[in-house]
Amino acid sequence: MTITANQSPAVEVSGHEPPALVSADPALTERVLASFDTTPSPRLQRVLRSLVAHLHAFTTDVALTEDEWTAAVDFLTRVGQISDDHRQETILLSDVLGLSMLVVGINHPDNGGPATPSTVFGPFFVDDSPAFDNGQDISGGAAGRPCFYSGQVRSTTGEAVPGALIEIWHSDEDGNYDVQNAEVGIQNRGHLHSDPGGRYSFSSVLPEAYPIPEDGPVGDLLHATGRSPWRPAHVHFMISAPGYATLTTHIFRSGDSYLGSDAVFGEKQPLIQVFTPHEPGPAPDGRVVDEPFFTMTYDFVLDRQSATLSS
Amino acid sequence: MTITANQSPAVEVSGHEPPALVSADPALTERVLASFDTTPSPRLQRVLRSLVAHLHAFTTDVALTEDEWTAAVDFLTRVGQISDDHRQETILLSDVLGLSMLVVGINHPDNGGPATPSTVFGPFFVDDSPAFDNGQDISGGAAGRPCFYSGQVRSTTGEAVPGALIEIWHSDEDGNYDVQNAEVGIQNRGHLHSDPGGRYSFSSVLPEAYPIPEDGPVGDLLHATGRSPWRPAHVHFMISAPGYATLTTHIFRSGDSYLGSDAVFGEKQPLIQVFTPHEPGPAPDGRVVDEPFFTMTYDFVLDRQSATLSS
Repeated sequence: MTITANQSPAVEVSGHEPPALVSADPALTERVLASFDTTPSPRLQRVLRSLVAHLHAFTTDVALTEDEWTAAVDFLTRVGQISDDHRQETILLSDVLGLSMLVVGINHPDNGGPATPSTVFGPFFVDDSPAFDNGQDISGGAAGRPCFYSGQVRSTTGEAVPGALIEIWHSDEDGNYDVQNAEVGIQNRGHLHSDPGGRYSFSSVLPEAYPIPEDGPVGDLLHATGRSPWRPAHVHFMISAPGYATLTTHIFRSGDSYLGSDAVFGEKQPLIQVFTPHEPGPAPDGRVVDEPFFTMTYDFVLDRQSATLSS
Repeated sequence: MTITANQSPAVEVSGHEPPALVSADPALTERVLASFDTTPSPRLQRVLRSLVAHLHAFTTDVALTEDEWTAAVDFLTRVGQISDDHRQETILLSDVLGLSMLVVGINHPDNGGPATPSTVFGPFFVDDSPAFDNGQDISGGAAGRPCFYSGQVRSTTGEAVPGALIEIWHSDEDGNYDVQNAEVGIQNRGHLHSDPGGRYSFSSVLPEAYPIPEDGPVGDLLHATGRSPWRPAHVHFMISAPGYATLTTHIFRSGDSYLGSDAVFGEKQPLIQVFTPHEPGPAPDGRVVDEPFFTMTYDFVLDRQSATLSS
């Protein structure tokens, strides 16, 4: 675990003082801020001082009671305790508070250009997904309507990006990810590379909308606030290639009734795409499919990696 | 776990809007704030809206990088995961960020009157401590210099408070609490009641200064910031009696070299008391002690319970 910050922030921070914020006990808050005077990393010092200033201002603003403090301690403890190799409740908490999308926006600002927008990473990514070739089925036998995905990876100036690593993960027809069910193996998850023309293709099943996990503390939070846990149907993509900024995004299914109320605020208009229905018959991979199927075509546009100085 | 807030806050909150704070993505932040419109409890709605406003303002202020967000997620997850029945790392985190003392100050403001000041609860309290009579030894055989504690519990108007429940817990001569060592039983921990004259007395050992646990994520934070983990020597007291506000406090040993740099900001001047050394000889409980011993006398003064309306 790394606490120190090695990556340059997106904006200039040198000499920045923590914001002047109200505290119920300014002398105490000053003592806490001063306790970070010995921090070797100026960046870590700045982050922690701002954190303390805002944390004390929030606590003062709401005049937090001791019962509420105890409830917050219990809540945060449970968030960590329910997390394991297959469940990341802390990310889920960040997601439902809009923090994840805020960090996405700060680090990948939409500049109105042609690049594909970023959205939340989410809690369901798994390292070491299976490798596939273009045209293969990544569903792992998951039940659901067949769907054939294809498109191109290219630069903002229109050049094909060959050899891009494309990680894909999505829910099944019941809205579940494979990692949520110990009884299935790896499903609807894999990686492949764009071909020499930058093109990619694979088949899988149609993703469905789903509620984020509701059986933990984040679910308790949603229930206590009357919020919907539903996310509109989407497929996760993470695309990386040398010289380009890694893109973490989703493609959402147009027409989904949960569009407009994504529980984690991840929806962006350019990411909503038509999944076209087809009658049984010849499919893009040459097979003849004996049931209705879908196709989705999307071209991912990558920003070039910005040449920032490392701290 | 209770997320809803049933206790009245210390200050008036009705109709309060979240503070206007800067966000890198005001439209996103507004969507997150609006997501709490359906919250049945106005108090919970207000707390969460303020939390989100401050969390987004902090994240914007420091332009949090994705690496830092990942480190923060890992850190918070570890804080929960290392916590168990005998260790509460989330409280420790609140303590080192000065949040615990801020909440103490908001809910038990020092009004300059005669009442004993409150300080942090800390992570080492245990429910169902052993019961003792006045005059008994609560050390459970812990090694250390004998120390005889006595005094009175009274009201701010000088009346004795008989039958007050007095919970006591403190470190041993090595600065450890019993719950930090699975090989010792219950030591330096117990409860008793003030007598008809409001008086209390017990013996135990002299508490010593100690570093807060450094082998978890909070220790990593202290190391990364060059902060001292040490707390000056103290004895915890929690005193409750019908009609009085429960007092959670410490008595600190004057002369301790860590006074002035308490890792959790819990020190308050009126709580620093002389632990008087004595040569071997007759002790306050009638025994003759064959080694040097100490006495500490302190009168706890309780505030009357304020008559607040419950929400």
